[in-house]
Amino acid sequence: MIVILKSDTASQSVQELVTNFKSFGLDVHISQGSTHTILGLIGDTGRLDMDQIRMFNCVEDVKRIQEPFKNANRKFHPLNTVIPVKDAAIGGGSLTVIAGPCSVESEEQIITVARSVKSSGAKLLRGGAFKPRTSPYAFQGLREEGIRLLLEAKKDTGLPIVTEIMDLSQLDLFAEVDVIQVGARNMQNFELLKQLGHTDKPILLKRGLANTYQELLMSAEYIMAFGNEQVILCERGIRTFETYTRNTLDISAIPVLKKLSHLPVVIDPSHSAGVAEFVPQLSMAAVAAGCDGLMIEVHNNPPCALCDGVQSLTQEQFAALMPRLSRLEAALQEA
Amino acid sequence: MIVILKSDTASQSVQELVTNFKSFGLDVHISQGSTHTILGLIGDTGRLDMDQIRMFNCVEDVKRIQEPFKNANRKFHPLNTVIPVKDAAIGGGSLTVIAGPCSVESEEQIITVARSVKSSGAKLLRGGAFKPRTSPYAFQGLREEGIRLLLEAKKDTGLPIVTEIMDLSQLDLFAEVDVIQVGARNMQNFELLKQLGHTDKPILLKRGLANTYQELLMSAEYIMAFGNEQVILCERGIRTFETYTRNTLDISAIPVLKKLSHLPVVIDPSHSAGVAEFVPQLSMAAVAAGCDGLMIEVHNNPPCALCDGVQSLTQEQFAALMPRLSRLEAALQEA
Amino acid sequence: MIVILKSDTASQSVQELVTNFKSFGLDVHISQGSTHTILGLIGDTGRLDMDQIRMFNCVEDVKRIQEPFKNANRKFHPLNTVIPVKDAAIGGGSLTVIAGPCSVESEEQIITVARSVKSSGAKLLRGGAFKPRTSPYAFQGLREEGIRLLLEAKKDTGLPIVTEIMDLSQLDLFAEVDVIQVGARNMQNFELLKQLGHTDKPILLKRGLANTYQELLMSAEYIMAFGNEQVILCERGIRTFETYTRNTLDISAIPVLKKLSHLPVVIDPSHSAGVAEFVPQLSMAAVAAGCDGLMIEVHNNPPCALCDGVQSLTQEQFAALMPRLSRLEAALQEA
Amino acid sequence: MIVILKSDTASQSVQELVTNFKSFGLDVHISQGSTHTILGLIGDTGRLDMDQIRMFNCVEDVKRIQEPFKNANRKFHPLNTVIPVKDAAIGGGSLTVIAGPCSVESEEQIITVARSVKSSGAKLLRGGAFKPRTSPYAFQGLREEGIRLLLEAKKDTGLPIVTEIMDLSQLDLFAEVDVIQVGARNMQNFELLKQLGHTDKPILLKRGLANTYQELLMSAEYIMAFGNEQVILCERGIRTFETYTRNTLDISAIPVLKKLSHLPVVIDPSHSAGVAEFVPQLSMAAVAAGCDGLMIEVHNNPPCALCDGVQSLTQEQFAALMPRLSRLEAALQEA
Repeated sequence: MIVILKSDTASQSVQELVTNFKSFGLDVHISQGSTHTILGLIGDTGRLDMDQIRMFNCVEDVKRIQEPFKNANRKFHPLNTVIPVKDAAIGGGSLTVIAGPCSVESEEQIITVARSVKSSGAKLLRGGAFKPRTSPYAFQGLREEGIRLLLEAKKDTGLPIVTEIMDLSQLDLFAEVDVIQVGARNMQNFELLKQLGHTDKPILLKRGLANTYQELLMSAEYIMAFGNEQVILCERGIRTFETYTRNTLDISAIPVLKKLSHLPVVIDPSHSAGVAEFVPQLSMAAVAAGCDGLMIEVHNNPPCALCDGVQSLTQEQFAALMPRLSRLEAALQEA
Repeated sequence: MIVILKSDTASQSVQELVTNFKSFGLDVHISQGSTHTILGLIGDTGRLDMDQIRMFNCVEDVKRIQEPFKNANRKFHPLNTVIPVKDAAIGGGSLTVIAGPCSVESEEQIITVARSVKSSGAKLLRGGAFKPRTSPYAFQGLREEGIRLLLEAKKDTGLPIVTEIMDLSQLDLFAEVDVIQVGARNMQNFELLKQLGHTDKPILLKRGLANTYQELLMSAEYIMAFGNEQVILCERGIRTFETYTRNTLDISAIPVLKKLSHLPVVIDPSHSAGVAEFVPQLSMAAVAAGCDGLMIEVHNNPPCALCDGVQSLTQEQFAALMPRLSRLEAALQEA
Repeated sequence: MIVILKSDTASQSVQELVTNFKSFGLDVHISQGSTHTILGLIGDTGRLDMDQIRMFNCVEDVKRIQEPFKNANRKFHPLNTVIPVKDAAIGGGSLTVIAGPCSVESEEQIITVARSVKSSGAKLLRGGAFKPRTSPYAFQGLREEGIRLLLEAKKDTGLPIVTEIMDLSQLDLFAEVDVIQVGARNMQNFELLKQLGHTDKPILLKRGLANTYQELLMSAEYIMAFGNEQVILCERGIRTFETYTRNTLDISAIPVLKKLSHLPVVIDPSHSAGVAEFVPQLSMAAVAAGCDGLMIEVHNNPPCALCDGVQSLTQEQFAALMPRLSRLEAALQEA
Repeated sequence: MIVILKSDTASQSVQELVTNFKSFGLDVHISQGSTHTILGLIGDTGRLDMDQIRMFNCVEDVKRIQEPFKNANRKFHPLNTVIPVKDAAIGGGSLTVIAGPCSVESEEQIITVARSVKSSGAKLLRGGAFKPRTSPYAFQGLREEGIRLLLEAKKDTGLPIVTEIMDLSQLDLFAEVDVIQVGARNMQNFELLKQLGHTDKPILLKRGLANTYQELLMSAEYIMAFGNEQVILCERGIRTFETYTRNTLDISAIPVLKKLSHLPVVIDPSHSAGVAEFVPQLSMAAVAAGCDGLMIEVHNNPPCALCDGVQSLTQEQFAALMPRLSRLEAALQEA
């Protein structure tokens, strides 16, 4: 870590600051420039709080050289992490597709969709039981019953299931869930992350609407620091000034996160676009950019048959997309 | 609510859609334009999910005429809500200043700061016991002990206390806390909001980093819909492309939230600016724009005496700011 | 266009407003709801200024049903526009790659790069002569001499050239330039756009850093409304809160712009990423999402041979990327 | 400037880089840390291009210690710049209010408004002659005739005038204009800025929709570097995710720009809010935060008398606001 001092800092202040840093067990290199003094801090700077250091009035700026995340850092873990979930191996080199409805609505619905997406090639079933809704007056999900129905669908099809936890108090209900999803709004719910760090289940961690790559990796670090190394990173669109699409898919997240971290990266094109019609192109783009998996909303029962078409892909649209993704994946392996 | 149909929608689809809306107990007015058909939905549209409606393929767009929040809506509650907290009356027409350190560090610290800010005119004491930190390796707050120390400071000074809850499991520890703060990262932690709706304590609800006014008011609505009407809205800076200040204080939030809602609006200039030197000007601006209160970080023990100055205001800086705010407030009442 | 009136609007105000709209030659449908009156305006609403209408105090909101752009609108021009530039046909169904250095530096440099990118398969040569630089103290480009050198490279290789205009006063120098580029900072330099509308040259119009799809298409509309229909839309990354990459490539721009408009869409992965290492993945993603072309920075002379690597791709990196793009393109045509 | 090298950089590469920097006339301090080598560059680093340096593969990051702007920098010019315009002295310690209609519409209109705002206390008259409009089909301003009418209003009232230039070709028409405005969309039209640097008129430079403080100051630097030191900085709202107001007024711009620069800072609350009803509160906030001036839209002829109210303030609303601003200003001088 580099600490740049203001140009007029008295040497006594410099000494005080150096003593302060040494009290944290750090080595300090002092570099006296013509206008500024620069301190190089050497040692375990991961525990230092940059904002705390900026608070010193004699400090002009602070710059980290090493990322503050360790467990999630590719530098210390060069090989890709592979997360096995039944027959799937997320991050293992081939594309894993997670599919299913936004919300679990009924046993018939979830089993119908589960069978359909399985036959199209999905490796995991997704479905919302606890639903984070902006409005208290909107449908909040089937909750406990929703989990039960997902487990029925799992029994019927053999597909492992992914579903979202919204609060620690729900954790017991997730005993048989295969992958626990942390939604974008809970990405910095640190108490939840800590507890998930004590479980032995893979965690699909969604990037918050306005969170940076580093913040996402620090949230992964929370889970990993408490013992659970099975974290799947998920980009699902960020909030920008452009409102034509619900969110803006940040496609660069794929190469950047793969560079910074060894964790697998999954893309959610459905929430990014907010409309079904752009999901195929965004899926193709994500695969071409090197993602490890996709999480796609698929629904069996478009709300209005004559109007045929919903935000979720229909089962038929999903069935048509999957072979295109496979051919793309094959072409990329040659390319 | 207005639903605009695509230009080529078949009349059978229109009828299906109308039947669908009527099944929700709504009246539907059909307006046949030269190119588009428009449906006006009349009744309790607050329960409708706009995104759900946009999913219909024949729907071009949906527009709400009435805001989806009711309890928080000034239209249905024209008078300002006043929230009494001991001697303070937040929203009652005079400025309420909440002050104290970012984190509770020790009994001596919190009591020293509490006495100081009280003598300068603060009406409530703030202090973090549970701290949401981006890094799992950073100081996480004194937690339970922090609450205990805040209560000591309350006993000593008589100042009511405001402190942040991070998870439902901590709620029992807040029995003697006067105002429970929900942090920006938890603004859409809906399970937490629901439970806080069952308490009888004022809730200081911070706007999320990238949440709209409407989303903030919908989160207030969660608390209110479950029975607790004592919600204080808090703007603390939003995330934009400008990184010189830690966040961008959205000063317009004051007149906009006061227009849309009857709830009091408090500004946190400390988190907005991220540096102490801009806190006085932002505080002055917030008061001039009509806020009901300010929440200001004040610290007794700048980490490096010679470097005199921290992100928090010093006790002296706070003592100097308060009479300026009072003179401004007086001038505004004449103006 | 739909105009929603406030709930308490007097009928006399409604009549005044209706008379006002009719004076613009519009038909007005009045729809009286239970709480709000809604006016449907029918006719050539493209000339109406929504903000002007919102200024009326009795107006709650205004909603366009038809996009305000016509010449650029796919609804009125369903077939893709193909823009022929020598041997290339931008928008014609196969990928067109534009390559070259950021700035023209010398005759040797531009000819070397031109030959190299041509042999790798680029169809157009790019190179900056007039350079928009944030700092007045930075290199401003070779300017007139830069254009001359580009024309030398064109003569040598036969590659048509693309270069940026920064001010109308430079237009005469562009007589032999094949495609005139309008940079992101000039996307709303409307006087420039109008004059380019009087030329007969293809215009490569870059999206501004914080401009919406609709604003981009309205800028295209400026050029087209003045007579020049050869507009190529270029997405080059938008400004968001994420600063790890220089800009955030908005990959959704490809399917969205292709839906809204018949104009070709080219992606600039180099400015989006700001670093060479992510250019290949972003290029692959853009092709998979269906772009018509790519504009890639390629440099012959990395500034530090031992440090091998610059923001621009090296000629070797570009030569390695091109066959991967071709294989991807072929796979997509099968898919 | 500090250049941080990657951890595995060979000493030969370090030497090459050092030689390279020295060839620019810079001194280089090498600081060998335990993991990273850091170069401190000393001398006239304002001419260095940080992005150019980042291109070196062995460079991990670059950090400026000194701002890249000099003429605009308060460090080298501690006293406030005061810009006299007739009776006004912008930046001279008392609030300067600029008022007038968005567009000049007719002689009667502009003279009526000019007289009215003068009698309310405005010191300068604003009015648009050349109008940057998103749509080519919208009213583009009276252009040359608009300038003529502004000069009539100036003759009638004695008020100096501020109006926007959109292209260099219009410069001759501005011979008698007192302050030339550069609009947000032209903030980085560098050719225009350079030429304005050769004039002897005050330039009111508006911040672009998504431009940082530093970019604004670099654009001021363009004008100043070419000889014109009379630059007035204008914050007019930035583009964020919040769309309830047209733009988000960045109130922090006032203390930040006043800290970084000696140039006066004017706030445009009308474009920030986009609706008249929030203009008074934003004006009050801006004054309380320490701005040097306000630029407020005032119109004489609300388009619909019964609907009384437009985006611009009415003359009466402006007349009511001005004494409130004066009382606030007086209170601040005591405070």
